[in-house]
Amino acid sequence: MRAVVFTGIGHVSVTDAPDPVVRDDGDAVVEVEVACVCGSDLWTYRGLTERARHAPMGHEFVGRVSAVGPAVTALRVGDRVIAPFRYSCGSCVHCRNGMTSACAAGSTWGYDGGFGGQAGRVRVPFADATLVKVPVGGESTPLSALLALSDVLPTGHHAAVSAGVKVGSVVAVIGDGAVGVSAIMAARRLGAARIIALSSHEDRQRRCLQAGADEIVGERGEVATQSVLTATGGVGVDAFLECVGTEQSFRTAIGATRPGGSVGFVGIPHGVDLPVDELFRRNIRLAGGMAPARAYIEELLPDVISGRLDAGLLFDADLPFEDAVEAYRLMDTRERTKVMLTLPPS
Amino acid sequence: MRAVVFTGIGHVSVTDAPDPVVRDDGDAVVEVEVACVCGSDLWTYRGLTERARHAPMGHEFVGRVSAVGPAVTALRVGDRVIAPFRYSCGSCVHCRNGMTSACAAGSTWGYDGGFGGQAGRVRVPFADATLVKVPVGGESTPLSALLALSDVLPTGHHAAVSAGVKVGSVVAVIGDGAVGVSAIMAARRLGAARIIALSSHEDRQRRCLQAGADEIVGERGEVATQSVLTATGGVGVDAFLECVGTEQSFRTAIGATRPGGSVGFVGIPHGVDLPVDELFRRNIRLAGGMAPARAYIEELLPDVISGRLDAGLLFDADLPFEDAVEAYRLMDTRERTKVMLTLPPS
Repeated sequence: MRAVVFTGIGHVSVTDAPDPVVRDDGDAVVEVEVACVCGSDLWTYRGLTERARHAPMGHEFVGRVSAVGPAVTALRVGDRVIAPFRYSCGSCVHCRNGMTSACAAGSTWGYDGGFGGQAGRVRVPFADATLVKVPVGGESTPLSALLALSDVLPTGHHAAVSAGVKVGSVVAVIGDGAVGVSAIMAARRLGAARIIALSSHEDRQRRCLQAGADEIVGERGEVATQSVLTATGGVGVDAFLECVGTEQSFRTAIGATRPGGSVGFVGIPHGVDLPVDELFRRNIRLAGGMAPARAYIEELLPDVISGRLDAGLLFDADLPFEDAVEAYRLMDTRERTKVMLTLPPS
Repeated sequence: MRAVVFTGIGHVSVTDAPDPVVRDDGDAVVEVEVACVCGSDLWTYRGLTERARHAPMGHEFVGRVSAVGPAVTALRVGDRVIAPFRYSCGSCVHCRNGMTSACAAGSTWGYDGGFGGQAGRVRVPFADATLVKVPVGGESTPLSALLALSDVLPTGHHAAVSAGVKVGSVVAVIGDGAVGVSAIMAARRLGAARIIALSSHEDRQRRCLQAGADEIVGERGEVATQSVLTATGGVGVDAFLECVGTEQSFRTAIGATRPGGSVGFVGIPHGVDLPVDELFRRNIRLAGGMAPARAYIEELLPDVISGRLDAGLLFDADLPFEDAVEAYRLMDTRERTKVMLTLPPS
């Protein structure tokens, strides 16, 4: 098979790799139809997350089951499946708590010695618990929309759920990439009365509005905080969805949330020093983290299939898998926010 | 009247002060029957919170209304009332959201130029919104139990509410002073299935058990984290109530909370650097802050009057008001955890 590997800062390669096979009884092998590049892949690409040379890349894919181990009962060869960005056992206390991202037996694709999601085939441990089978009605759903369920849609949803978005909430979202746009969709789906999107790029602003934002704040930093406060009569929002992960974005979010409100954060924090005194003084709740994607897919999938969640909106490029190098370049330069890679039929 | 003022690090004095009078139409004047010393008064006393010489001390009191302004409608002279530790207008958006501690027109007693709660009389702005009248059935309730509603009981309750304690929750509480014991009582009242109290003092351990804790962890720091994890089969608690405010107590709490669980914090943070990466990785929610005491008193009062909340347990000394200097000494040396001061009848 072919697979994308990291070959040094600013470089990835599409290379030959051995086909994975069923190893444990609960394994499946999935033949990947579509994969994509994640903002967190860029952390590796840019050298900001240290990884070994030849580390396998990618953790989002949709494909068809090509082999199953003898203990797999819920899946058959040929089933189309969505893989969340981590596999998980489904039976430990954390999985039962819906916190599949904390499963001690689980891992993110490509971080356990196996291949990543940017590959022709992937061995899937705990296949029954990990993979979500696309139901009959979903056979005509665009693959890009299904692929959004691997990571970005559940992650945006996690921001909204963590911040307690409910019917009538006044919400702000920082981050206008695929996760931020997903968070806007998720907040709208949960009944937010008003959504303010922070975005300073004109084309991205447009996409935020398409996804369901009501208004745009185009400033950044302290000015953005003031703009959100002004837009809410000096009060602040009920829920602020933090989809970036920088110190500045956390400060903007915390500063523009009303006393007793919540910041839902899903941007991987990089060098963030939290203003705990302000959290205390203003009773700002902070919740979020690595999304338990698996626990959300079944809830979100029907709305993706029906088109109520316009998940295809999240991808702004679709390249052949062999052009993965160009996909990384497009995302690294911010020419594109989310690039899908389509595998050739085997 | 007589009032307690700060007179330099390690010193307070009981001094003569002018009697307050009704100034605004919505004011009441309360003749204080009982007041007390708070852990946060000790921050001033120890010089860790900077305050001016002669700053008025105290913010917890129960007394009888001795005068009302013409706009006061819910109170009459002679009513026994509980004062939350801050006054609040009751009508702004934050008050309506139940976040009375964020009322922009409000203040903590003694921080707005007026006198503190350790005084013979206190002028109360927004009296209708601020004071809670003790109903007929509460006339025989011990004053110490009512006084606990000024601050410590609502603060402990806020820790439990912020951490989402509900029927069946597995809870840990760090802090074995009056707020920590209140948090234990609050968690029990909200239906916690199991409460682990962290306390290393034998007499305080006993009080934690009396208040409703099921078991004690006597260690501190990293060892305490491990003990709580071991006691929960390596999983961690659903809710950890942080009632201290130090870096160490936050780290113990975060480390011993299960993925997807919550830390409810009410200890005023002093020099706390939050491990945001761990919050992210393990999906630990952090919620709390300065308790909106006023918003909770009416909910808690019936259980104080009925004795279901044994609020009198929170005080371990009762001194005449003129002995306030000794009250501070007893608390500063940790010989007592919460000292009530009784005013002479006028």
